[in-house]
This record gives sequence, structure tokens and C-alpha cells, in this order.
Amino acid sequence: MAPDTATTATLGTYDPKAPGLRTWHDALPRFLAGADTPRAYLERCLEVIEVREPEVKAFVAMDITVARKAADKATTRYRYGRPLSVVDGMPFVIKDLYEVKGMPTELNSPAMRGYGGDKDCAHAMVLREGGAAILAKTVTTEFGSSDPGPTRNPFDITRTPGGSSSGTSAAVGAGMVPAGTGSQVRGSIQRPAGYCGVWSIKPTFGALNRLGGHSMSPSQSVLGVEAGSMEDCWATAYFISSTAGGDPGHPGLYGEPHLGEAKKPTRLARLDTLGWDGTEDDTKALFEDFLGHLRMQNVDLISRHDDPDMEAFEQALTTIPDFLGDMFCWEMKWAGKIQREKGEHLISEAILGRIARGEEMTIEDYRRCLDMRDSLRAAFDRVKGKADAFVTLSAQGPAPVGMAVGNPVYGDISACTAAPALNLPLLADRGMPMGIQLLGHAHQDYDLALMGRWFDQVFLRD
Amino acid sequence: MAPDTATTATLGTYDPKAPGLRTWHDALPRFLAGADTPRAYLERCLEVIEVREPEVKAFVAMDITVARKAADKATTRYRYGRPLSVVDGMPFVIKDLYEVKGMPTELNSPAMRGYGGDKDCAHAMVLREGGAAILAKTVTTEFGSSDPGPTRNPFDITRTPGGSSSGTSAAVGAGMVPAGTGSQVRGSIQRPAGYCGVWSIKPTFGALNRLGGHSMSPSQSVLGVEAGSMEDCWATAYFISSTAGGDPGHPGLYGEPHLGEAKKPTRLARLDTLGWDGTEDDTKALFEDFLGHLRMQNVDLISRHDDPDMEAFEQALTTIPDFLGDMFCWEMKWAGKIQREKGEHLISEAILGRIARGEEMTIEDYRRCLDMRDSLRAAFDRVKGKADAFVTLSAQGPAPVGMAVGNPVYGDISACTAAPALNLPLLADRGMPMGIQLLGHAHQDYDLALMGRWFDQVFLRD
Repeated sequence: MAPDTATTATLGTYDPKAPGLRTWHDALPRFLAGADTPRAYLERCLEVIEVREPEVKAFVAMDITVARKAADKATTRYRYGRPLSVVDGMPFVIKDLYEVKGMPTELNSPAMRGYGGDKDCAHAMVLREGGAAILAKTVTTEFGSSDPGPTRNPFDITRTPGGSSSGTSAAVGAGMVPAGTGSQVRGSIQRPAGYCGVWSIKPTFGALNRLGGHSMSPSQSVLGVEAGSMEDCWATAYFISSTAGGDPGHPGLYGEPHLGEAKKPTRLARLDTLGWDGTEDDTKALFEDFLGHLRMQNVDLISRHDDPDMEAFEQALTTIPDFLGDMFCWEMKWAGKIQREKGEHLISEAILGRIARGEEMTIEDYRRCLDMRDSLRAAFDRVKGKADAFVTLSAQGPAPVGMAVGNPVYGDISACTAAPALNLPLLADRGMPMGIQLLGHAHQDYDLALMGRWFDQVFLRD
Repeated sequence: MAPDTATTATLGTYDPKAPGLRTWHDALPRFLAGADTPRAYLERCLEVIEVREPEVKAFVAMDITVARKAADKATTRYRYGRPLSVVDGMPFVIKDLYEVKGMPTELNSPAMRGYGGDKDCAHAMVLREGGAAILAKTVTTEFGSSDPGPTRNPFDITRTPGGSSSGTSAAVGAGMVPAGTGSQVRGSIQRPAGYCGVWSIKPTFGALNRLGGHSMSPSQSVLGVEAGSMEDCWATAYFISSTAGGDPGHPGLYGEPHLGEAKKPTRLARLDTLGWDGTEDDTKALFEDFLGHLRMQNVDLISRHDDPDMEAFEQALTTIPDFLGDMFCWEMKWAGKIQREKGEHLISEAILGRIARGEEMTIEDYRRCLDMRDSLRAAFDRVKGKADAFVTLSAQGPAPVGMAVGNPVYGDISACTAAPALNLPLLADRGMPMGIQLLGHAHQDYDLALMGRWFDQVFLRD
């Protein structure tokens, strides 16, 4: 990895061992030794941005002056050996569903044009207090749903970066910044992270404070982090949770501030999930090959064929399409109607349709959705302890050509179970990034991240 | 009850059998029969407001034009026998922690002067859609905490109405309107409803949608309804929940749209709670006398002395002061700092102190608070089924003289257990209202309301 030298990617020749990602945790010793500074690091980011941003289009707003000031202050603190935090001086970008002082919050919707800018959301506030150089807001889909923004995949600009965390994934994948926030209701962190070759953590539901953010599906929305390394994902997420807290009433992220030693999993459970049938054949073959490598590492693999509870859980996953759509339509009714009042022409047909469906529904319809989700969660509880973690793909194939942001189905398992999940950018699929998802039970985030480090060492560092 | 004739109250001679409350459910047959109209009803409200509001000071904003238009439209619909809903034409007021189109949301804080007015919160939206005549925003305490607004108790203007739902309680208690919303984190619905002789429902946590509201203590804040009768409390709360839903992820209020037949409790559990020691002697004697009347009605009464689980629960309640304050300080940190940035001179010393405490805390401190609350909830679960409901006071004495909003301690039991509670305005304590609280387990709201109706019939209609 030579994070500070790769400035452009060659199309269709993605190499997961040399992706051009930018890392932060390994820069801190150089800052403290006087061999590098946060300001110089930021300027290198800006150089990449100058080259890549015109085609990648990851950002909706940028404030270089504010970021440079923060980087300069951090530079002084490192000089005296006194950084404020693990994020001191780190160039950071924030998904445009969350509010940031000095930049509007537009949710990729003309109905929100020019909104906000008067305050920092909870995670922007603590990152700024910790010295981070908050540089930009990143493109999302309309209201975090499906209508895409202008962002392109950094490894092939004819392809989507995925959504709804489109801009953050593309910016980190292109090596423009070391880290940023995403958020996920279905597959909005894991899938774009997978498409863009980025490390990500979608933590246990409620582990990172969402205050100051906008979500139309509050009962499943989760704030997460995407970064150029597992270490940076973890340290940033832990910093946010330990300072801003989790969502009110939630205990936040358990673990250590810095990621400890890599942990080899003894046994993993392979999940097909309801997305397997629609997965491209080449991608299926790639996954089977990956599992073969795991077996060669003496990792025990189990599946639905080895255990009736695993089979029952896989079957429960197939109920997701029966409740998820309606669940969101009900939850978005109020926020959707507020937007629709501004003018129907400002809202996509897809969103208008969902609001209308929410208006047709009764509270009994919504309760049936919650009951079905509860049943899925109960089936998930019954497979707890059967393996150290679950492993599956992050998407059904590499990022599709065009602007449609891809199928979120592989995100549904962790989203509907409120469980943590990582994207590990371990594979190349026909010259494009392909992510492996590692999933656990609630509050197993730190353990997952330690395993993520093991995958990094075994699959990318050899 | 002659709700439309009482326009002023005589100080210090409160009679719970003739409080001057305004009811709505019993007006609907008259509207349908053409004997009365929503517009005429509204005008009678406005007459009382003209007399009482200058001294009671319940409102921060009022829009008579909008309310009259809504009442006129409802009048036409009743004329054709086609009201939109149970709230069609009902004059309604909304606590100023919640947003209402056309009126600012100021949270009784100079830091919020002029904020909002561009949209309806979720419950205002559905009430308006149901035809309600939304008339005013009601005074609260600073950010819903302890610093009082100008409102006075309608039964003695030298006394507080309580807080933080000060204005709604006073407005309904004075007979100015039939109903309004309150919200509660500790005792902010039950206590002022008790002080002002008003019926209230503080439902199961999450049962009424809070979107579009502002709370600094989100993990305990609950939206509720105060009204001139148990029937109106229930029908309004049920209407809000069945249309706007509960909080996202919550199943909402279970039960029927209209309150059914009164239900006599077979057995009640008397709770002293940690507030009993500080309760005034006269009020203690009044409560014992009330329990005596219950026994005469052949209601079986149990207490901490009859059951080790009840004793354990009472003891668990005494741990509340060990976690509640810190819990709120952590949860308000982000929202508090956003306000403080506008200028410390705009924020009370009390709030500044809590923000500072929140900044000192670690996430481990907060987790200890959550763990203690979980232990209390576990102790509460163990007394489930021991009685049909729990009964206690709504406050330690009648509304105190002065502006301080009184001790919320009797609200803590339902607030910390996420359980439903009613205020029943059954008693007079030295010429002022004194409320009885009826409490249940989560989702027992409807059952409680049916019992509330029985108390009304037995204690007020004889």
C-alpha cells in the first residue's frame, strides 16, 4: 500500500492488494516524528481531489479554508507531541444526510435546496472538537433512497459507486480522503463500500449517535464509517461513539480505542441470504473460491446444510421482502409529506409512490411488519454462538454500468437484525472491486473488526 | 359537569365534581343533531380565553383565523353527517416543544426565538388532517426542563401550573380548550395535569409519534394528551397513534378508537415510590382516605408489605436519583451545546450546568445509568400480574405558590419504566386539585383508560 502516491486508477484493472486507498493511523507516527504533517497530508488529498473529483463527482459542498485551518492547528499540536485525539487533523467527509456547519444539507433533493448549514450533527461536532479537518459533504441518493446523484465509480466512471453512501464510498475509494461517514437502512454502506473497494463498518443499530441527521426509515437507519483501512474504520467509529455516544438509550460501541491484534476466526458460517439466487455466476464462483482459501487457512465453515437453525434463519431471511418495503413506507409518511408539500414536482415518482403507500397503510399493517422483523430477529438469535461470524458477499456482482445504484439485498441481513457488519475489500471481480461481508450479532463489532484485520493480513498482505 | 358554562374559577375552592373542564366527545351528538356547531364551540372557548388568558398566560402563540376556518369546515361536514374523524373541529393546543405550521417553536428559550413555523410535527399534521382546529402553542419550561414560563395555575394564579406541560395543563384546567398535547420525561404531564385538575394519559413509551418535536432527553420523552375527560384523552391519543403511528419501530397504542365501558379494578397495588417521604402530611392523609374509599368499593389493595417482589420494586425505585440526572446530562449534550453556541447568556444556569456535566461524563458513565434503569425495569417486570394496576399520587402536594414548577418525583416511576400512566383529577387538597395516578405495564394503556372511566363514575358522578 502506497496511499500517498496513487492518484489515478486504471479502469477495469482493480487490484485489491494495491487499491490506492489512503490510510491515517499509520501517518500519526510520522506526524509525531516531524516527518510529515496533517497540513501536508491534506494538501496531498487536495491534489488527488483536483485530478479525480471532476470525473468522480463525490462532493456536493467543500470548505477547503476550514479544513486547512483545522489541519494547521493539528500540525502545531503534533509538533508539540500533543494531538487532541486519534482524528486530530484527519481530512474527513460527511454524507449529505447529516448536518454540517457552513455547508447546506440537501439530501440530493431539490426540495431541500439550501437547507441548513447552521449547526453540526452530533458526529461532525465531536470530530471537529477532536481536531478533524472536515472537508466536504458527500453525494447521497434522493433522501437516502434510490434516485442517484452524479457520483461515478472511481474504478470505472461508466459504473455506479452504489448508494446511498455514494460520495463517501467513491471519495475514499479514489484515495481522495482517508475516511468519511455513511449511513445504512438496507445496504447503503456495505454495497457502495464493496463497489468502491473501501473498508467499512456498519455498527450495531444505535451504536453511533444519529442526532442532526435525516432519515426516512428511522427504525433501521445506522450511522457508520468508511475508510482506507480496518484500523481507521474502527478508531474513527469508536472515537465518535465514545464522545458523541450512541443513539439516546443505546450503550454505544464496545471495545478499545485502537484496534488490537488480528484475530483468526475458528469457524465461520456461510450465508447465502435471499440475494444469492440473483448473484452473477462469476461472482458466485469468486465467492466459492474465496471460501476455499479460507478452508486452506483451516477456518471451519458451516452453512444452512449443517444445522437446522441455520436453515431456519436462511428461510427467515427470505421473508424480508414481505415486510421491508411497507415498513419504510409507514415510517417515511410524515417526513415524506413534509417534503411533498413543497411541491410534487420536486420529489421523484419512487418517493411519491412510497408516501402514497404509507398513506394507504393502517397501523395494523405496520405492526405486521414489525412482527415479521421480530420473528426474523428471533431466528437470528437462535444461531448465536454457532460460529465466530457470518460471511457473505457485499453485492450480487461488481458495480453495474450506468447510474442505477445496484441491488441492496445483501445489506438486508444486518440491517433487519440490527447487527454489525463489515465490508472487507478483498476481491477483484472482472477488474472491479468485490467486497466480502463479515457479520456478527449485536455488540460483537470489536470482535468483527479484529477478524477484519486478520482477513486483511491473510488476503492482502501476503 | 357543565363544560360550556363555567368561565371563571373561584380561587382555593376547587371542587373535583364541578371543575369547569370542557369536554368534546359528548358534544358530537349535538353537532350531528344540529343543536350545536364546532364553530360555536370554538367561540365559547375564545370567550373563556378572553376572560382567563390574561391572568393564566397559557399560550405563547395563537392563530384564531386558522382555527375558525377549520371549525367552519367541520361545521359544514357535521351538517351533512360526515365528520372526518373524532377530532373534527376540536379546538386543540400543542406544547411548544413541538412544531406547528404558522407558529414559532421557541421552547421557552431566548436561544430559540422565532425558530420554525414552516411545518407541522407528526401529531399536528394528522390532527389537522382529521379536521381539528389547532388554535395555539402552549407555554413550556426552558427546553422542557425546569426554568418556568409565565403560566399560572387556573385555580389560584399565585401558584404554579407545574411543568413542563404548563400551558396545556392550565389551558385545559381553565376550560379554555377541551384538549392539548403534553410531553413527559419525568413528571411533565402527570404533575401539571394533577396540579390543574386535568385528565391525562402519558402512554407507553413510543406509543405516540414524536417526530417534529424537540427533546433533550430522547430515551424517556413521551408524547401524551391532556383533556377535560378520560374519553377525550383516550380518543385523541388513539387517533394520533393510529394515523401518525408511534415512534418509528414502536407498535403504537393498542385498543379501540372510542373508550369502552368502565372497568372496575379487582386488585390495585398501592405504590409509595421514593416521593412518599417528601409528601405533605395533609396529602398523605387524603391519599389514605382515598384508599379507604376504594376498599369500601371492594377493591382489593396490596402494597410493599404484602409481597417481596413489590418490596423489591419499591426499593429499586429509590435508585432513580442515582442515575436519572446523569442520564439526562449525557443525552442532552449535543442539543445543549448547539444551543450554548448561540450565547451562554441565552441559557439558564441550570441547563449550562447539565451540559457541563454531560461533557465531563464518559460513555461508561452513561452505560452505568442505562444498566441501573434496566435493573429497575427488571424489578418492575417481576411485579407484572400482581394487580390490575398501580395507584399513587400525581404530586407531593397541591401546586406550590410561586413560579417553581414543583417536584416531578411521582412521574419517575412510569417515566423510568417506559410504562403508561394516567392522571385522574379526583381529589381536592385544601381547595386545590390533587391527582391520583393510575399506572400499568407497557401496552396496558387501554385497560388503564377503562379503569380511569370507572374512577370517574364512582368518585365524581355519584
